[in-house]
Amino acid sequence: MSFAEATTSSREILTGLHDVMASRTHAQGKLNRVVEIIGEALDSEVCSIYLLREGVLELYATRGLNQDAVHVTKMALGEGLVGVIAKSGRILNLDEATSHPDFAYKPETGEEMYHSFAGVPIIYRERPVGVLAVQHTDPRPYEDVETEALQTVAMVLAELISNAELIDDSASESDAARETGAMRLDGQKLVMGMARGTAVFHQPRVNVEHTVAEDTEAERQRVYAAFRKMREQIDAMTNQAEFGAGGEHADVLETYKMFAYDEGWSRRINAAIDSGLTAEAAIERVQQRTRSRMHEIDDPLLAERMHDLEDLSNRLIRIVAGQLGTAAQLGLRSDSILIARNLGPAELLEYDRRRLKGVILQEGSLTAHVTIVARAMGVPVLGRVAHVRRLIHEGDELLLDVEEGSVDVRPSATMVEAFEAKLARMQQKRAEYAALRDVEPISKCGKRITVMVNAGLREDVAGLEVAGADGIGLFRTEFQFLVSDTLPRREAQLRLYKDVLDAAGKKPVIFRTLDIGGDKAVPYLRQEAGQEENPAMGWRALRLALDREGLMKVQARALIEAAAGKVLNVMFPMVSEPWEFDEARALVEAQRVWLEDHHHMLPSEIRYGCMLEVPALAEMLDVLLPRLDFLSIGTNDLTQFLFAADRADPRIADRYDWLSPAILRFLRRVSKATNEAGVPTTVCGEMGGRPIEAMALLGLGIDRLSITPAAVGSIKAMVRSLDCGALEEQMDEWLAYPPDDMREALLDWATQRSVAIA
Amino acid sequence: MSFAEATTSSREILTGLHDVMASRTHAQGKLNRVVEIIGEALDSEVCSIYLLREGVLELYATRGLNQDAVHVTKMALGEGLVGVIAKSGRILNLDEATSHPDFAYKPETGEEMYHSFAGVPIIYRERPVGVLAVQHTDPRPYEDVETEALQTVAMVLAELISNAELIDDSASESDAARETGAMRLDGQKLVMGMARGTAVFHQPRVNVEHTVAEDTEAERQRVYAAFRKMREQIDAMTNQAEFGAGGEHADVLETYKMFAYDEGWSRRINAAIDSGLTAEAAIERVQQRTRSRMHEIDDPLLAERMHDLEDLSNRLIRIVAGQLGTAAQLGLRSDSILIARNLGPAELLEYDRRRLKGVILQEGSLTAHVTIVARAMGVPVLGRVAHVRRLIHEGDELLLDVEEGSVDVRPSATMVEAFEAKLARMQQKRAEYAALRDVEPISKCGKRITVMVNAGLREDVAGLEVAGADGIGLFRTEFQFLVSDTLPRREAQLRLYKDVLDAAGKKPVIFRTLDIGGDKAVPYLRQEAGQEENPAMGWRALRLALDREGLMKVQARALIEAAAGKVLNVMFPMVSEPWEFDEARALVEAQRVWLEDHHHMLPSEIRYGCMLEVPALAEMLDVLLPRLDFLSIGTNDLTQFLFAADRADPRIADRYDWLSPAILRFLRRVSKATNEAGVPTTVCGEMGGRPIEAMALLGLGIDRLSITPAAVGSIKAMVRSLDCGALEEQMDEWLAYPPDDMREALLDWATQRSVAIA
Repeated sequence: MSFAEATTSSREILTGLHDVMASRTHAQGKLNRVVEIIGEALDSEVCSIYLLREGVLELYATRGLNQDAVHVTKMALGEGLVGVIAKSGRILNLDEATSHPDFAYKPETGEEMYHSFAGVPIIYRERPVGVLAVQHTDPRPYEDVETEALQTVAMVLAELISNAELIDDSASESDAARETGAMRLDGQKLVMGMARGTAVFHQPRVNVEHTVAEDTEAERQRVYAAFRKMREQIDAMTNQAEFGAGGEHADVLETYKMFAYDEGWSRRINAAIDSGLTAEAAIERVQQRTRSRMHEIDDPLLAERMHDLEDLSNRLIRIVAGQLGTAAQLGLRSDSILIARNLGPAELLEYDRRRLKGVILQEGSLTAHVTIVARAMGVPVLGRVAHVRRLIHEGDELLLDVEEGSVDVRPSATMVEAFEAKLARMQQKRAEYAALRDVEPISKCGKRITVMVNAGLREDVAGLEVAGADGIGLFRTEFQFLVSDTLPRREAQLRLYKDVLDAAGKKPVIFRTLDIGGDKAVPYLRQEAGQEENPAMGWRALRLALDREGLMKVQARALIEAAAGKVLNVMFPMVSEPWEFDEARALVEAQRVWLEDHHHMLPSEIRYGCMLEVPALAEMLDVLLPRLDFLSIGTNDLTQFLFAADRADPRIADRYDWLSPAILRFLRRVSKATNEAGVPTTVCGEMGGRPIEAMALLGLGIDRLSITPAAVGSIKAMVRSLDCGALEEQMDEWLAYPPDDMREALLDWATQRSVAIA
Repeated sequence: MSFAEATTSSREILTGLHDVMASRTHAQGKLNRVVEIIGEALDSEVCSIYLLREGVLELYATRGLNQDAVHVTKMALGEGLVGVIAKSGRILNLDEATSHPDFAYKPETGEEMYHSFAGVPIIYRERPVGVLAVQHTDPRPYEDVETEALQTVAMVLAELISNAELIDDSASESDAARETGAMRLDGQKLVMGMARGTAVFHQPRVNVEHTVAEDTEAERQRVYAAFRKMREQIDAMTNQAEFGAGGEHADVLETYKMFAYDEGWSRRINAAIDSGLTAEAAIERVQQRTRSRMHEIDDPLLAERMHDLEDLSNRLIRIVAGQLGTAAQLGLRSDSILIARNLGPAELLEYDRRRLKGVILQEGSLTAHVTIVARAMGVPVLGRVAHVRRLIHEGDELLLDVEEGSVDVRPSATMVEAFEAKLARMQQKRAEYAALRDVEPISKCGKRITVMVNAGLREDVAGLEVAGADGIGLFRTEFQFLVSDTLPRREAQLRLYKDVLDAAGKKPVIFRTLDIGGDKAVPYLRQEAGQEENPAMGWRALRLALDREGLMKVQARALIEAAAGKVLNVMFPMVSEPWEFDEARALVEAQRVWLEDHHHMLPSEIRYGCMLEVPALAEMLDVLLPRLDFLSIGTNDLTQFLFAADRADPRIADRYDWLSPAILRFLRRVSKATNEAGVPTTVCGEMGGRPIEAMALLGLGIDRLSITPAAVGSIKAMVRSLDCGALEEQMDEWLAYPPDDMREALLDWATQRSVAIA
């Protein structure tokens, strides 16, 4: 049985329907004509249309059943064959309808004489709004071509019904939603925060409004052109894939590519066009067909791939319909929470930051570029929310609470109230800290603690003064690379570094050289990067920079030129052995010499430091420290290596505590060595931004922190209420004989002494 | 232009060819008939067959060209259009042949009057053996259906030519190989070692011998049945994928699955059967067609997927031909080196270990199960050899040298000689060490060093006595899980542990509890494992065991029951904090109590120890050691965490030295603490199996090693020639003031004192 035959019969029907739709008859008259046309074309004794009214399926038109039953026979969703079809959204095709367990006998219809039965749902905007059914006296199932034709017709019917305003309001989107009620979806905590807003799809859906083609040849041309464009787009996406700069993963793109070039898919769409559909409807029709096939196969691996095809299908419809813009281009109209399968960092930056309150991703990971950038922007992100694009509808109200790892969809008034109250408490606290911004962080025992901020985005620079920080303790130069599709040229780097230094004024800025590669891959290193099994322990940061000097040389020149006449602080990431620091330093010095030889104005001083984030380096501090101007302890990476526990894995992220004696002992050994050597040492991981952890660090003799700007207030409050001398003594004791629960002990100690750690 | 039309014309031709093949005419007469049949069917003025003789293409039969040119016109490979086709293996289709840059005018043929030209290669056993060409006076290219038909015919011609013994011997496999000459392929060093042997494909190729179908309907049924079977196989493979127990990666299987259920593929094969081919030939024909399409698309991502299709196509042919066995089932006939895309550990174990000398994989990784098992078996493995299944042919002689990271294919006599000499030196050395097996490892200063072995396979147990070791210092219980498709039941575990203890007799065996999860995923934990970004730092070993107690309880019972009346040594892997050891110990103790309550015979003693492989644990030795009966330092994992450098990444694996001062200082700190606490401490990583590294460990005060059995001899030799007291003193000095190159310093020291470290 070929698709071509189905094509012929549905084309015949569609021509007929087109005339009916264009006619001036009233809606009921049209439906009456429709059942005649279909029944005749499929040679079926019975053809009936049921429409959903107030949650009940009502017989609206029939050929073959008793006309008295029209508007009389009614079935609940899930009741009888018709109810099952509407509820499940799937077709039924039976040679003996009465033997189906769900068969419900309706005597008024007189249908007992018919044996075979085929019914398809009528779908409008992804919801069933009715059922189209045919029946036959012969006990034989309908053939595939016939059910195919029925489904094509059902698509057109949906349009007709909608135009005739026969779509029941109670079945429309918002009401169905209300019916569904509130729902909580769980996900992975990617960027902490709370947000309230309206659901906006990054790639808005297109609703197919016109289904019957006026000019089949023209539709075919539209599809051809759309396929060409889609392939171009995917090829372009592929060029920035793998390194994660685009939103989609390389393996997803591979599948996209395979489908985009798949003969079968385009052939089926063309066949659907041949049957008389518009390009949009044809794509949608093929997608519906694939969906129903998928239900039959019921394989999770294939289902995953079918998501890809679904995405691609939506993309193709958007191209055909000329509705290409993302929600960013269309503009956000109110406080919004963005819904996407995935997102690239550049795509995220396109949104209006005043209205973008949060992001919910179907995929996403802690190390994805978009997560890194969203964290820097302060936009909360919830990731790995299963089926989010099916469960949340455009326009739904959402309460996002990443601390809870969940989002409330279509919340009740009580939920909104509780959420707003929690939000208000947070904002209250924030206001209190804001007041502390301009006071100096001096401890109760008189020690001046240096509190600097971490930064990386151009936008971060402006906030420096406001945050009341002592400088930028960590400027992540890789951000410029991660948010860019192409290698930022030296001029662009220079401009950014200069702007940062200008904005910082007299306050110091510590530039960390590129930490790319590994889990932060970039396009221009793609061939070499390959697939790493454990990217966090891979070829990244300084390892990569020393193997591929070009990148580092360009950056060194940009840094030196940007800091002309000023102090330049350069910091190298992922140093594992002292020789790596020496090599990196020599590389920058060579650029300084070159620039000097070419009569460029130089920095007044270049100070060199490195990150301590690889445990082995701590063994070599006696060798390393004499060569350093400063040291920074990157507690995020360091702790994950010390515990061999990936922070990105939720099952082990909470297993080991930053306040464990193992970590604190390790840090104290480092802090003692650096204090003795007189090398200024900063902690620049997340640890320093949390009051109780920061307090513990001060107890270890660390007096410099570089933290997220949002934490400056709370850390200052903690510092000003702390007697660090007393804590250092207590800490010595605890580390010699660790208490059972170090966190508990620290919290008790702080509470007893009224240290501000709330 | 449809495939159906091509079908009709090639079917017509095939019927004709079938008659020719069945006729009693001599070969030349058959070829003469063939060109007539084809020329007529395609309405071509010219049809010619060129065959490869002694590396030259010779005109063997023609319709339309001067008959005088037959056996006269000859062209080198790559010369003229015909030569280009034979060399490239691709088709040419030109509307104006003379304007092609490679056109070579052969006046004797009289072909100047013909404009259009289409030629296809005749392929036999994956090599071009001739060219079939048609020409036409009209300057129009041949249509796709015509070149399709030509290619189908060329397949049948290959069979005819082979039957007529017209395949030139000089073009046959072995000779073509000799022509190609020696070749060196590089790969990743997965398991060290050298091996010489014949190339054997894990999945042997099927050569399609019969191309024209006798009964098309029967062929169709054969293909249907084969598709069903293939789908079943792939579904079964999928069930053991993801966790790496099967040879193929989950993503490859996804692609397999997609192709296996792809309508387009089966449709094309059916169309090829309609054209008159046998099932095997039809599959091969479609594959050829896909290959040539791929050349046109030239996309690396798709090319990767096409490898998958190629694999699947081979599988389908093997099913149709009933040749399903792997090379293991067929049996190895001589010393062999196995070639595969990938391999599961169970598949590897099926091979005859006496004849399996090495493995070459197209994929593979250091952490794949097959690598772990091959290492335990002592079978050298070279991985990630690109295009290996295309570049190496079944039966090729191979010299595998994993130390060099390469394999020599079809080596010259000189290469074989050099290889054998190197092998002989190694074997000589090995014989010398073998002599040391029964002497005790006592150092020159009189210290008895404990030298134990690592084991995990059932087969390892027998070798224990032979190796002359002091016991099994590390029995990797996860091996039984990795090589099994299903969860080994308690009875199976008990049996293995009992056999191991029986074989070990009075010597101790240290059982390490399961180190699965992370990079050693197993099926029964699949749903929970998910995708980890850094599996080495993931949810594995004890972390998993404590979260899912079931596995560990079963194992504890099996261990306790197996050791009834004996000493049981239980060791926990990946302990990061002391509480994890306590919990694990309590779990085993609970089983002991239960068994005691139920009057089972218990071990005479249960001794508890743990691995030190997570750096943080070293900070807590004061807390941990009093609770331990013994400690093992797992230097493989430990060093990778200390340096945050994945061993599996070749770009950084060589970057940091096990003999770096950082590692040695760390280990000395541990060794001092354990010696003071009186806790026996063993190093059980690879480090202990290398003479110079092991010497350094002895210099740190470590006196227990557990190593690969193959290394026992060389380590004993080193121990017996070493004054460890002197080295300890020297080491103290070096670690206080590290020399520039610690390895160099150690080597010099050893050489000056004649320590056996060769």
